[in-house]
Parts: sequence; structure tokens; C-alpha cells
Amino acid sequence: MPNPTLAETLAAVGPLDVPAMAAARELHSRLTKPAGSLGELEELSVRLAGLSGTCPPPIPEPAAVAVFAGDHGVYAQGVTPWPQEVTGQMVLNFLAGGAVVNAFARQTGASVTVIDIAVASPLPAVEAGIRTAERLVDEGARILVAGDMGIANTTPAAALIAAFTGASPEQVTGRGTGIDDEMLAHKTSVVARALALHRPDPADPLGVLAAVGGGEHAAIAGFMLGAAARRVPVVVDGVIAVSGALAAVAFAPDVLGALVSGHRSAEPGASVALAYLGLNPLVDLGLRLGEGTGAVLALPIVASAVRVLHEVATFDSAGVSEK
Amino acid sequence: MPNPTLAETLAAVGPLDVPAMAAARELHSRLTKPAGSLGELEELSVRLAGLSGTCPPPIPEPAAVAVFAGDHGVYAQGVTPWPQEVTGQMVLNFLAGGAVVNAFARQTGASVTVIDIAVASPLPAVEAGIRTAERLVDEGARILVAGDMGIANTTPAAALIAAFTGASPEQVTGRGTGIDDEMLAHKTSVVARALALHRPDPADPLGVLAAVGGGEHAAIAGFMLGAAARRVPVVVDGVIAVSGALAAVAFAPDVLGALVSGHRSAEPGASVALAYLGLNPLVDLGLRLGEGTGAVLALPIVASAVRVLHEVATFDSAGVSEK
Repeated sequence: MPNPTLAETLAAVGPLDVPAMAAARELHSRLTKPAGSLGELEELSVRLAGLSGTCPPPIPEPAAVAVFAGDHGVYAQGVTPWPQEVTGQMVLNFLAGGAVVNAFARQTGASVTVIDIAVASPLPAVEAGIRTAERLVDEGARILVAGDMGIANTTPAAALIAAFTGASPEQVTGRGTGIDDEMLAHKTSVVARALALHRPDPADPLGVLAAVGGGEHAAIAGFMLGAAARRVPVVVDGVIAVSGALAAVAFAPDVLGALVSGHRSAEPGASVALAYLGLNPLVDLGLRLGEGTGAVLALPIVASAVRVLHEVATFDSAGVSEK
Repeated sequence: MPNPTLAETLAAVGPLDVPAMAAARELHSRLTKPAGSLGELEELSVRLAGLSGTCPPPIPEPAAVAVFAGDHGVYAQGVTPWPQEVTGQMVLNFLAGGAVVNAFARQTGASVTVIDIAVASPLPAVEAGIRTAERLVDEGARILVAGDMGIANTTPAAALIAAFTGASPEQVTGRGTGIDDEMLAHKTSVVARALALHRPDPADPLGVLAAVGGGEHAAIAGFMLGAAARRVPVVVDGVIAVSGALAAVAFAPDVLGALVSGHRSAEPGASVALAYLGLNPLVDLGLRLGEGTGAVLALPIVASAVRVLHEVATFDSAGVSEK
């Protein structure tokens, strides 16, 4: 299926495989550990069995990070103190391997790819995201991370989160890279005006993206849809990625089964979106950088959860007594 | 310093290096990311600079996990439904590579060593822990994890935490591997009786360990002291490790600078001890297995935090504009 369209991708996204999940739960009950003693990692590994349709599911390696970069018209409204040229400068920094996401990716053996989303309309951006996921999976990736770079991109993220969840602009608008009270009040009013002007309908995700989204938000939604269609998990990063996740789930609710929440960003909209999606983040350390950094930190945890189902002895095989 | 005594080790534990920490903070301010955007990872990397006395501090690899195994007289009082023979069976499982800690360690490239703590008196156990840390550092480890295995060992851990923090038996006694309400009430009363009988003095850690501790708790305290004396960080696992940490800090308060809280165990005493020590865990996923598992999950996060100081470009070097 070369270069699948959005419609073809949506048709390929399906539910979790219930028998594989039951098999993973049953296997967990026989492994040499007290029942439930791995906490949230047990259900995570069960869900990944459901995604792959096999028990155990494949160990999710190697990982590939796609950093979607874009610029934003809302920049002109004074929502950030950073120069807009930083988006392009940081793209060069990613390509040179000098950004935080590169350092974190080297730690865990993940590749980093930068995708320039230059289009202003959402459908090509969504389909660029789908194609990126397809390509990375074809190249061998077995888990994906959606990262982002775009000066001013927390403003459209806030508007998207408000549009999809019904939360107020005050609940979802945050300080991004670190803005003062005055600029935060202005940024919140910009989000509120955008929502009042466009009145986006959450049942029409392409319309929401067209009205208040940015290129990388749309591309990330497509990336998640593309991964889910291939039944490969995506680890969700911070507020940009989770706003894309809301769009992806609005396109196809079953995409949720492929999403692993990597971390809780300090940006308030991220927590609103995670709660709406029912996702519980693996890491919660106050990061607010984007680029995919928080999600990359979670990659070894996801792999460890799956390794348990491959490598841990059963009570029977190890000759360990049960209670 | 072959086989240092407890007294020699205590004399070698010192404070964090303030100029190295200042240098790490200054370096962070020049890296290509918004100030503070890595949240708790920034202060973690600063502290590790203070521990090593260099900026940047060494990347904390390779990691070595020492699983201290012991049996406990309190087993006879009916505090767990598991047969006592499971301690020894699990030691064989660790040696065969079939336990969860082995799977997690393989994911992150850590070695796993099992140390049988057969002695019933605390000083030899503490010094066995010191020697283990010395040996692993001599063999090249640059970060250590203290794990544990011992049927019934959450009972002495609860008593240690109550003794060192002043918390009540009800606050610190938990379900361990998963016991019912009736056994939990009995276990709590066993802890309360031990404390009432011995009235351990928290200013005398060897006395507290002798009165209510177990071999692996004492060994883990020594292990942390030995690591701190070598200025190598120790990632703290769950309720057993953190009860050992309380003893280590009672021996030498500066040991705290070498301790990184790996995760928050679901066992209630762990949170009491972490709060008392002022440690904020890196991972909080409801694990309650011990073996060092939660700490091993955190190892890549610690390494990632340090990598930032080695590998991320500065605004100046990367030609990225500042706000």
C-alpha cells in the first residue's frame, strides 16, 4: 500500500485483539513474581499484545523518532518571546545531532528523523504524517515517537485541546517555553478568539485542524494513524503530540490502542488531554521541551514491560514454589 | 583501601562539590533549550556533578545491580503466605537470568550480581555491602543499584522505617507481595511489638539494624555508604532499599548526595521514607516487586540527564538565537 490516503489509513485502523490480551494476562499469572507486582507495566504489555495480535508481542525495538517542524502564522500575534528563526535553526541542530532529543535518542538507540511540514492546509500534513510512519515501519522501526519543533506551536496546541475536549482556554493555555503573566494572558485571549471565530466542531477533525491547528499537529495526527494502521505503538510526547493524538482519536477511536503516554508535560493542556484520553503517563518529571524528549525517556520502560513476557521464567520452569 | 571497615568508609563520605554544581547550572543555561525545560532532570544532573566533583559528571555507565538475599526469623510469625524456600529458589532464578530484574537489566545493559547475606548480625552485613560496592566500582561500574530478595523482608523494612522516621506501624506496614486484610493487621501488630520491645534509637543505626533489621537491609545500607565513599551514585529501589537508605543516612548524612530515587514502590512505607529523605522518585508506576526492578527502570533516565551536559549544543555553538 504505497502512500496510502487518509481514507485508506482510517480503514486499516482496527481494535485490539482480545484473545492475545487474554493470553498475555494468563502468561503474566505464571511468571516468577507476585501477581500484579509490576503495576502499570503489566497492563501496558497486555495492551501491546492486543495491538500486535500476538503473545508475547514483539519487543518494541528499534525505535524511530520523527520530529515534525513547522512555523505558525499566530507567531505574529506576540505569543512567544523567541525569534521565529529559531524553528529553522533548531532543525539544523537536530540534523547535526546537538539537540536534547538527539542525546536522549542516542541513550536508547533510537533514530531521529526531521520532517519539515511546510504546508498550511491539514490534509497534506496529515498524509505526510501517515507516509512518515509507513516509511519508518518499512525501514524496520517497531515503535515510533512523534516529536515537534515550531516556535509558537503551544498556542495552536492549546486551541486544539480546547476544541476537542471542551476545556476552556484558561485551562489549556500555558507558559510554553516560559512566558510571563502578561504574555500568558494575551496568549490565552488569542486562543479564546480563535475558538470564538472558528467554532470548530470536534466531530470534524480535519475542520478543527484547518481552523486552529498547525502543520506539525496535523502531521502528528497522521503519523499516529499510520502507526496504528500498521499496528505499531507510538509513544506520545508532550502538549503538541497529545493535541495531535486528540485529532487522531477523533479520526479513528481505535487509534487509542496504539498510543502509549510517554510523559506528562508541565504544560497544563497536556494533562487536560491525557485525562480526556484516559492515558496515564510513564514519566512525570516536569519536562516541557517537546522535540519528543519525554517520550524517548519512556522507550526503555516500554521495552522492559514487553521483555518480561519474553524472558521471565514461569514458576513451573524455574522450580519456584507458589503461595 | 582493600576491604575498608565501616569506620573507614564513614570517614570517606563527604559533601557535594559546590563549584562543580555551579558549573553545571551555568552550562545548562547555555544549552539549546528553554531554561528549566528539562524539569527535574536538570537538578539531577547538577547533583551528579556535585557528587563526582566534575562538570560534566561522568556518564553513569555501565550499571551494576547487586541483589542482596536473606532469610528472616520473623517469617515464623506468619507475615506472608509464601514458603520461605522461595528466597533460595529465586536466588537460583536470578543466577539463571530468569527473574524480572534480569530482564530489565538486559534492556539497559546492567550486570546483575547476587549476594547471599547469611549473617544474622548487622556489622558484618553492613561491611559485606561496603565490600560489594567497592568491588563493583573497581570492576568498572559507574552507577549502582541495590536490589533485594527475602521472603518476609517487608516486615523488617516497615519496622526500620518506623524506627528511623517516627512514623506509626500502621503508616508503614503494607501488603508486600499481596496479603489480605487479616494478615496485614497481624503483620502490623508484629511490627508494633518489635518496636515496643526494642525501642530502637534512630541515632544508633547499628543498634536499629540489630534490633529490627534483616541482613539485606544492613547490607544495602553498607552498599550505599561504600558507593558514596567512592562518589558513585546509587539508584534506590523500593521499600527494602529505601529502609536501607534510612540507615545509611543515619550513619552519614552526606550519603544522601549519592542517592537517586529510582521509583516509588506501592508499599506505603516507601513513600514515608522517601518523604523523610526528601527524595522524589523518577518512576512511579505502581511496582512492588523489589529485586532492584524499579531502580533499573530509572537507569536510562539518569544516564539521559547526564548526557545532556556532554552532548547538547550551546546556543552559541549551534548558532541558535536566544529570546
